[in-house]
Amino acid sequence: LCRQRNLSPDQQLIAMSLIGDYPFAVHNVMFVPTLLSQATPAQQKKWLEPAKNFAIIGTYAQTELGHGTYIRGLETTATFDPATQEFVLHSPTITASKWWPGGLGKSSNCCVVVARLITHGKDYGPHTFLVQLRDYETHQPLKGITIGDIGIKMGYDAVDNGFLRFDHVRIPLENMLAKNSKVTPTGEYIKPKHDKLSYGTMIHVRAGLVNLSSQALKIATTISIRYSAVRRQSELESPNKEVQVLDFKMQQYQLFPLLAAAYAFHFAGARMVSFYTSFLAKQSQGDIGMLAELHFTSAGLKAYATELANAGIETARRCCGGHGFSKACGLTDLYESFSPACTYEGENQVMYLQSARALIKALQAVSEGQPVFAVLGYLSKPTLPAWAARLPADLNETGNIIQLFEHRAKRLVQHAAATLKEFGSRGQSPALAWNSSALELIAATKAHCELYVLNSFADTLRSATVAGTSFHGALNNLFQLYAYAAVERNLAEFLVDGYVADFQVALIRAKVQQLLASIRPHAVLLVDAFHLSDNQLNSSLGRYDGNVYEHMYAWAQREPLNKDQVPQAVKDYLQPLMREGRARLTSKL
Amino acid sequence: LCRQRNLSPDQQLIAMSLIGDYPFAVHNVMFVPTLLSQATPAQQKKWLEPAKNFAIIGTYAQTELGHGTYIRGLETTATFDPATQEFVLHSPTITASKWWPGGLGKSSNCCVVVARLITHGKDYGPHTFLVQLRDYETHQPLKGITIGDIGIKMGYDAVDNGFLRFDHVRIPLENMLAKNSKVTPTGEYIKPKHDKLSYGTMIHVRAGLVNLSSQALKIATTISIRYSAVRRQSELESPNKEVQVLDFKMQQYQLFPLLAAAYAFHFAGARMVSFYTSFLAKQSQGDIGMLAELHFTSAGLKAYATELANAGIETARRCCGGHGFSKACGLTDLYESFSPACTYEGENQVMYLQSARALIKALQAVSEGQPVFAVLGYLSKPTLPAWAARLPADLNETGNIIQLFEHRAKRLVQHAAATLKEFGSRGQSPALAWNSSALELIAATKAHCELYVLNSFADTLRSATVAGTSFHGALNNLFQLYAYAAVERNLAEFLVDGYVADFQVALIRAKVQQLLASIRPHAVLLVDAFHLSDNQLNSSLGRYDGNVYEHMYAWAQREPLNKDQVPQAVKDYLQPLMREGRARLTSKL
Ligand SMILES: Cc1cc2nc3c(=O)[nH]c(=O)nc-3n(C[C@H](O)[C@H](O)[C@H](O)COP(=O)(O)OP(=O)(O)OC[C@H]3O[C@@H](n4cnc5c(N)ncnc54)[C@H](O)[C@@H]3O)c2cc1C
Ligand SMILES: Cc1cc2nc3c(=O)[nH]c(=O)nc-3n(C[C@H](O)[C@H](O)[C@H](O)COP(=O)(O)OP(=O)(O)OC[C@H]3O[C@@H](n4cnc5c(N)ncnc54)[C@H](O)[C@@H]3O)c2cc1C
Ligand SMILES: [Ca+2]
Repeated sequence: LCRQRNLSPDQQLIAMSLIGDYPFAVHNVMFVPTLLSQATPAQQKKWLEPAKNFAIIGTYAQTELGHGTYIRGLETTATFDPATQEFVLHSPTITASKWWPGGLGKSSNCCVVVARLITHGKDYGPHTFLVQLRDYETHQPLKGITIGDIGIKMGYDAVDNGFLRFDHVRIPLENMLAKNSKVTPTGEYIKPKHDKLSYGTMIHVRAGLVNLSSQALKIATTISIRYSAVRRQSELESPNKEVQVLDFKMQQYQLFPLLAAAYAFHFAGARMVSFYTSFLAKQSQGDIGMLAELHFTSAGLKAYATELANAGIETARRCCGGHGFSKACGLTDLYESFSPACTYEGENQVMYLQSARALIKALQAVSEGQPVFAVLGYLSKPTLPAWAARLPADLNETGNIIQLFEHRAKRLVQHAAATLKEFGSRGQSPALAWNSSALELIAATKAHCELYVLNSFADTLRSATVAGTSFHGALNNLFQLYAYAAVERNLAEFLVDGYVADFQVALIRAKVQQLLASIRPHAVLLVDAFHLSDNQLNSSLGRYDGNVYEHMYAWAQREPLNKDQVPQAVKDYLQPLMREGRARLTSKL
Repeated sequence: LCRQRNLSPDQQLIAMSLIGDYPFAVHNVMFVPTLLSQATPAQQKKWLEPAKNFAIIGTYAQTELGHGTYIRGLETTATFDPATQEFVLHSPTITASKWWPGGLGKSSNCCVVVARLITHGKDYGPHTFLVQLRDYETHQPLKGITIGDIGIKMGYDAVDNGFLRFDHVRIPLENMLAKNSKVTPTGEYIKPKHDKLSYGTMIHVRAGLVNLSSQALKIATTISIRYSAVRRQSELESPNKEVQVLDFKMQQYQLFPLLAAAYAFHFAGARMVSFYTSFLAKQSQGDIGMLAELHFTSAGLKAYATELANAGIETARRCCGGHGFSKACGLTDLYESFSPACTYEGENQVMYLQSARALIKALQAVSEGQPVFAVLGYLSKPTLPAWAARLPADLNETGNIIQLFEHRAKRLVQHAAATLKEFGSRGQSPALAWNSSALELIAATKAHCELYVLNSFADTLRSATVAGTSFHGALNNLFQLYAYAAVERNLAEFLVDGYVADFQVALIRAKVQQLLASIRPHAVLLVDAFHLSDNQLNSSLGRYDGNVYEHMYAWAQREPLNKDQVPQAVKDYLQPLMREGRARLTSKL
């Protein structure tokens, strides 16, 4: 709000997508959608129009100073008072202060508040309430409400993430968002019909984060690959002719799998969205079966995609050498605005573990001969003793790639289940055994997600829009690189049971080398295909025209410090110091 | 300089240690030491006193816009003119502009410049020259000199990293730093006696970076482990009693190996420094043999330690959940100031590859029956078919741990050499084959460095200061965790040749679990032992007294935005927008 940044429109878009680098992001992405999904038609009628016209600016306040992950632990209470037909909102402790909501500190005058609903002395857990925070005219906080900005954080300089406390603040009964559950005037609690009703929205939000991960990787690889084609450093073969750093094997090995991931997440995100769309169609016919299938995968995918993209931005920046640290590169800002995606909308470790529950359940179902979701079909396939690929050409078979990842995912789910069981048999309670097996559970989820992404990619390659086009070959190389680089990264998981043998490791290594070489000549074209404008990239290093150095030089000239040859700070501090030093020396002579 | 930050004194110390978050860092850490190591006694007499009295403030300008890693490619020239007994400094292109030196932009009035020495038409490559940049009285740039700030970058807001261009600037002959090589008045070039003379300083600088990595991890783990002991989130066993997040297995699995690394790098850095000190003693007797031994390892160690610490800061921050992103946590600033250490003083990938050259050479020497450095003794040990540890208790033997890592390092060096050879036999030139084998070469160097660090740790455990003390048990747990967590992280490297069998993988897994559980009760004590003051940590989350929430709340109140309930920006932009919205709605009614 009051601090300045130089984000490109596209970086802003990324930032906006969930939490927002501008004060309306949470208004648009959380406040309005929550009204749409949780408010009754009457409530929507009352608040949606003002919200859409920015007569009210809202935010979504769930997280508290003391609680984020564990929503049942939220301390803010909304106690129903039948005498006045009001809820009394209260923050009993400092840790009950709402903390982090974007736009809460200074901009918003309204808010969806998540608070524990209490009526007739009974605690029904977290529910949502619409609360006016500030006077619509003066913008001063209403009585009993303390609001402010939570202070400076990494990135998001333009967003006033805020805190909020209630001292027995009264709101009318009709401000409880009552589409799913509600309280009657006499204080009876009526619970929601379905507990899966929120799945759809969650999938949609998580698909958004997979797309965001793709977008972040597109920006990162465009900047880093273009720069690596401009940057020349060291001689390789010809004397007096320095090579493009993109010719260094490690540069390729670091950047090309990220390029592949940018495409892979694009397809995976699209698959999730189309899944969600066809769900909406079926839902109208009362069929919500397919929803649960993607719901649990989507938690893991959120974690998997954001984690890989977050690390990828860092890798891409480091691949730019020293200039990667300059704001002229653009990747430090991208990192700052993207990185929180690993934590908000569900902390990644927590998301992986949430997904793992469904995997363990499904394995149990398989062992009992019950049907499982299509996406888990691999759990009931027979286990083969060894990977089928034996000749270099076999590594080009998509079937062999999928088989490899299905085997590994299945084995890791089994291993996690066995670990759980073992800790249980040693006397640990289910909760403790779950915690003791966290590493194995997370490995299983990651393997499951990697398979999901590979399947989305393979489906796309087979689809009408890609199959048979000139783009198919290049995409197929990226698909294979995505897969085999993942194998090399997690090699032990493929080796441990002897499924992949030493000679196959060598085949994979050779294949990766060959893929890097095949992708090299097209690398710049493959990032150009993302069609990111120079404006979106906001990077001297990643410019389309490749005039990196001229642009960096010109950019530096615009640094405000350069307005004066001798800035005030030098006059005030350094010049006296230097004068003193000279005087001391002269007096010594 | 003109931008503000809130770094703690210790974060400043970290920053200062090499590049500096204040304008004198490069003066103290690069400028003065360069005079000490490369200037003649006469030159030292002339410049050292003024430098020490800050009558002159200097920096070290090597990197150019176009060249950092490849020093032979530097474009700035220093051409000797025998007629006037001067060097003419010139920047022929934009890419020849010096770029990045700390304090160059606005603060320094002097500079050590690295430029290609040309005399009698012959190019002798990069040499160092002392150049006055600004008038000592007015601080205005001298004729022919263009200087400025390179603009905003990640972190280091207080340092004026600068650019510098020369337009035929003349400096006297005696400004070439001439301790090692020099030019006579007639323009004859006299080359240095030893090419290993600079090794000592380099080891010292790199040991400094290993220590810096330790220091960064000490800060990161202190903050994150203390906070994880305060933060309670979710119930595990007892209803209505949330657990400390430090009890979550993944939290331990992420943080405790970093704690171990903080100690490990402390010992490795100390070993390097003591090595250097005993070298200085022997050097006076003309013996520089032991220098080369550490020189090559130190390049790899610099990369290994900074890489692990850099990733560790990020991990520690993410372990703080949402609050990790607040500047009140302190870890985002630590990341910004530490991260460039992966790039400056030798980009990490380049450093690994540099180290690898010596490993490959040593293996060749071993195969020819020639002696190798002590630190490479493992290359000539016989290869055992399987790891000796067969029972859980065997995993406690330090000998078994070292054997495991010696085997893996040797195998990876052999594998890298074989890969090199294979690419050669397929017709690639040595330079190309080297590039094609980069991944294998780097894996070998990492394994070598990991072994070096483990040996330093093991030596410390055996040393008089630790053996037999009450601290020994706790340190020994950290040593073992450092080792076995590294095995799990790189498991395939231990599995691929069957040296570690499946049952041993299970033993290692169980051992890691046991170590995490043993370390858990002492974790907070083990970070308290670093004795970092609250001032040094500058973190609400990592405070010694554990009053995290009170402190965060108080910290937020001090945010300047909170001075006004309705800041100017809201008055200027949001209030009109909201008024307009309301007006639109009213007119619709
Ligand atoms: C930039 C930004 C914007 C935000 N915007 C909003 C907003 O608009 N509205 C809003 O309401 N909130 C917002 N948040 C808050 C965000 O949603 C929470 O920070 C997030 O959900 C993480 O929760 P936490 O902070 O409680 O993490 P914690 O749960 O405290 O995490 C700490 C550590 O404990 C571990 N852990 C916790 N529970 C478990 C478990 N059960 N099992 C295993 N490990 C566990 C985690 O893995 C993590 O390593 C924002 C946060 C950020 C950083
Ligand atoms: C904060 C900061 C402070 C600095 N301070 C100073 C200072 O005071 N004085 C000064 O002189 N300089 C300074 N520098 C510059 C710094 O020393 C260089 O940026 C650093 O040496 C890296 O070189 P580069 O930028 O040319 O990277 P590049 O070499 O351009 O690296 C780009 C990519 O190419 C790869 N690559 C390059 N060459 C090879 C090779 N031969 N083999 C394999 N891969 C290769 C790298 O691995 C990297 O991924 C500073 C830099 C920073 C970020
Ligand atoms: Ca910043």
